[in-house]
Amino acid sequence: MVQVTNLNQHVSTFNSIMAPDSTKIITLLTDFGTKDGYAGIMKGVILGINPKVTIVDISHEIPKWDIKAAAFVLQSAYRYFPSGTIHVIVIDPGVGSEREILAVQTKDYLFLAPDNGLLSLVFDREPECTVYRVSRREKYLGYVGQTFHGRDIFAPIAAHLSKKVPLSEIGEPYSDAVCGLFPKPKVGSIPLSGIEGEIVYQDGFGNLISNISEHEIAESGISENAVIDIKGKTIHGLRTSYASAPAGELLALISSAGFLEIACNKCSAAEILQASIGTLIAIRLPK
Amino acid sequence: MVQVTNLNQHVSTFNSIMAPDSTKIITLLTDFGTKDGYAGIMKGVILGINPKVTIVDISHEIPKWDIKAAAFVLQSAYRYFPSGTIHVIVIDPGVGSEREILAVQTKDYLFLAPDNGLLSLVFDREPECTVYRVSRREKYLGYVGQTFHGRDIFAPIAAHLSKKVPLSEIGEPYSDAVCGLFPKPKVGSIPLSGIEGEIVYQDGFGNLISNISEHEIAESGISENAVIDIKGKTIHGLRTSYASAPAGELLALISSAGFLEIACNKCSAAEILQASIGTLIAIRLPK
Amino acid sequence: MVQVTNLNQHVSTFNSIMAPDSTKIITLLTDFGTKDGYAGIMKGVILGINPKVTIVDISHEIPKWDIKAAAFVLQSAYRYFPSGTIHVIVIDPGVGSEREILAVQTKDYLFLAPDNGLLSLVFDREPECTVYRVSRREKYLGYVGQTFHGRDIFAPIAAHLSKKVPLSEIGEPYSDAVCGLFPKPKVGSIPLSGIEGEIVYQDGFGNLISNISEHEIAESGISENAVIDIKGKTIHGLRTSYASAPAGELLALISSAGFLEIACNKCSAAEILQASIGTLIAIRLPK
Repeated sequence: MVQVTNLNQHVSTFNSIMAPDSTKIITLLTDFGTKDGYAGIMKGVILGINPKVTIVDISHEIPKWDIKAAAFVLQSAYRYFPSGTIHVIVIDPGVGSEREILAVQTKDYLFLAPDNGLLSLVFDREPECTVYRVSRREKYLGYVGQTFHGRDIFAPIAAHLSKKVPLSEIGEPYSDAVCGLFPKPKVGSIPLSGIEGEIVYQDGFGNLISNISEHEIAESGISENAVIDIKGKTIHGLRTSYASAPAGELLALISSAGFLEIACNKCSAAEILQASIGTLIAIRLPK
Repeated sequence: MVQVTNLNQHVSTFNSIMAPDSTKIITLLTDFGTKDGYAGIMKGVILGINPKVTIVDISHEIPKWDIKAAAFVLQSAYRYFPSGTIHVIVIDPGVGSEREILAVQTKDYLFLAPDNGLLSLVFDREPECTVYRVSRREKYLGYVGQTFHGRDIFAPIAAHLSKKVPLSEIGEPYSDAVCGLFPKPKVGSIPLSGIEGEIVYQDGFGNLISNISEHEIAESGISENAVIDIKGKTIHGLRTSYASAPAGELLALISSAGFLEIACNKCSAAEILQASIGTLIAIRLPK
Repeated sequence: MVQVTNLNQHVSTFNSIMAPDSTKIITLLTDFGTKDGYAGIMKGVILGINPKVTIVDISHEIPKWDIKAAAFVLQSAYRYFPSGTIHVIVIDPGVGSEREILAVQTKDYLFLAPDNGLLSLVFDREPECTVYRVSRREKYLGYVGQTFHGRDIFAPIAAHLSKKVPLSEIGEPYSDAVCGLFPKPKVGSIPLSGIEGEIVYQDGFGNLISNISEHEIAESGISENAVIDIKGKTIHGLRTSYASAPAGELLALISSAGFLEIACNKCSAAEILQASIGTLIAIRLPK
């Protein structure tokens, strides 16, 4: 476990952080699937405490127990919500164990998630944040089991926070949050200003999204005439759209969330390349 | 068909049951899937009649025509919604036949479902309820076909009920509701205070949930040192969380809805056991 | 590309069409799937601009890039929403290419879709409509990429339209909209007043829905004693419900959206017939 040492300094500054006035949205991001009604149950609990909140599903189809996939989806989605939104993330293989539940206040958002690395990319992007651990049982649902904290803890705590209950009333400052879960690309690790990374997400279109950001590419002096190596294939040039390549052809571009992505116009890059999460990828200047 | 004889006495008591003042939520539970837009159409109809209602999906992924699965999901979800919620359940293989559509008022909720056993577990839990059959065509959508009553009858009736139209204006008292659909466990049927039951639901995590309730287990004097038999395997002890077993290991616990459940930490018990709905299960004292 | 010549006359009539006063609903119909959070991101953008709007999912499970399937689902759903609803459809294989984005005002609804034939069936049904192309970049999201116009253009434009921004402030009149995407049945092309058509949609129940409308059937003098030919099998008679045939038996009826449909009581007609989209079908009088 990597400790978020740079968060400590902020914790003491705020004794009772309030959700901003505009708090009306709670988003849900889980691996619950949509068959069993688990997300619906969370909504019932939330609406019972705050009937005026708007609940938005980000996804309930994260692969079961896949913390990295959820962290990736979260970082590509959370900034597109209005300031004051509360993001609730429940990918929680450790439910019922000693793991903590975090409530993290950033400049614009409040995050509620198990302390298992789900917020790694949020911590990277949001240096100024206040971290609490959830501990006040009087704010939980009446009965608290050890198998469905989404219903018994996350939902009621999120609903209370949306009613501007301060963080100090749902828990206490915490400085040991798990972070650093995501693999970092190796900048300058190969010739020609090259960056080595890996595929960290595969979306429903079969697009393969890497951990190499557009900023890292730009800072390495690599531009649209880049060369990309993946699975023994070489792709020449960064495009700006899927439709700019012939149908069925592999292409590289910057994803809508700002990362190097391998795609295919009207087909699945993952299938064509037989690649998936963990596949190595490199980008460099042409020879 | 089993008749709900004990409901008769309540029907005459209420001539025009009203939805409580707080009625603002309608939930939907169907086997429509999410591809074809059928649930979206129901929402359009509802919002056209009552634009102020909040609609919550419980599930649209119930296996097609699987009344038992829907009954199970319903009983695990409905009580987590605020008092006054209207629960609409459309698993309706008999659409267009002579089957009735029921509107059932319990102390806290109103249920709308075809009369095919979907409400079996609600009737078990809610002895005090008022049962109507839906019959007033003037409250249906203008055109009523025989293939999509979700759109033509359930949605408009639910919307009218959410606007406090009394039950007496959408139908008439009814006393022949189908119930008793669920298999009951056999308490004391094997030595050592044993209970025999069966798997009645498999969730998206591969957890296998039985019809043996925690109350039946407690009343038999069986506690956490129980022995569970399923598919020729023996599981020792009831745990309280998934994470308390090593990853990949079968375990038994009480599900979040209060029933004996076979699970596996970070894997699928259904796959490991090659078990599914209907698989026999027994719980007993250790020898 | 087929031009919508009969639309030209309407374009000049309205210089600043307003969304009706009741505009509070935005529907979403995409091929995004529900795993990756893309639809959730659109909702975040919309709610940031108009927090009071109600967003309803019609479907996010349209088969990837399948414009015809989306056009079919749209025509079966859009009329069931209240007047003033804004329907946003994003099946957009040409994202980032030169294709236009259309904003189409009909008597009751406003449609926002890429100009790729998605609105073919809307144009068929709604002769009186005003067509604009979206062009005002100041109404887009701050940063506009070429891979996710759902987030960068469709969502903000829909939100602005829901706040009664007139069409003249988001684009300009347009007369070249793609239409005529759907195959038309051949009325009277076979003996006995027969109509030849094809399967244009397969729903999640395995029902096969054709492009032959109930109006065309009625106008041909064919009634419930019709004969239907599909995949070498002959089905006698039009039924009114699934339940009116024995379980497992093929049947024909008029779908809930008004088209000739081949179904099977409690089973999948698509599986039984090994039929799918494009399969030929004919209906005629009995000999």
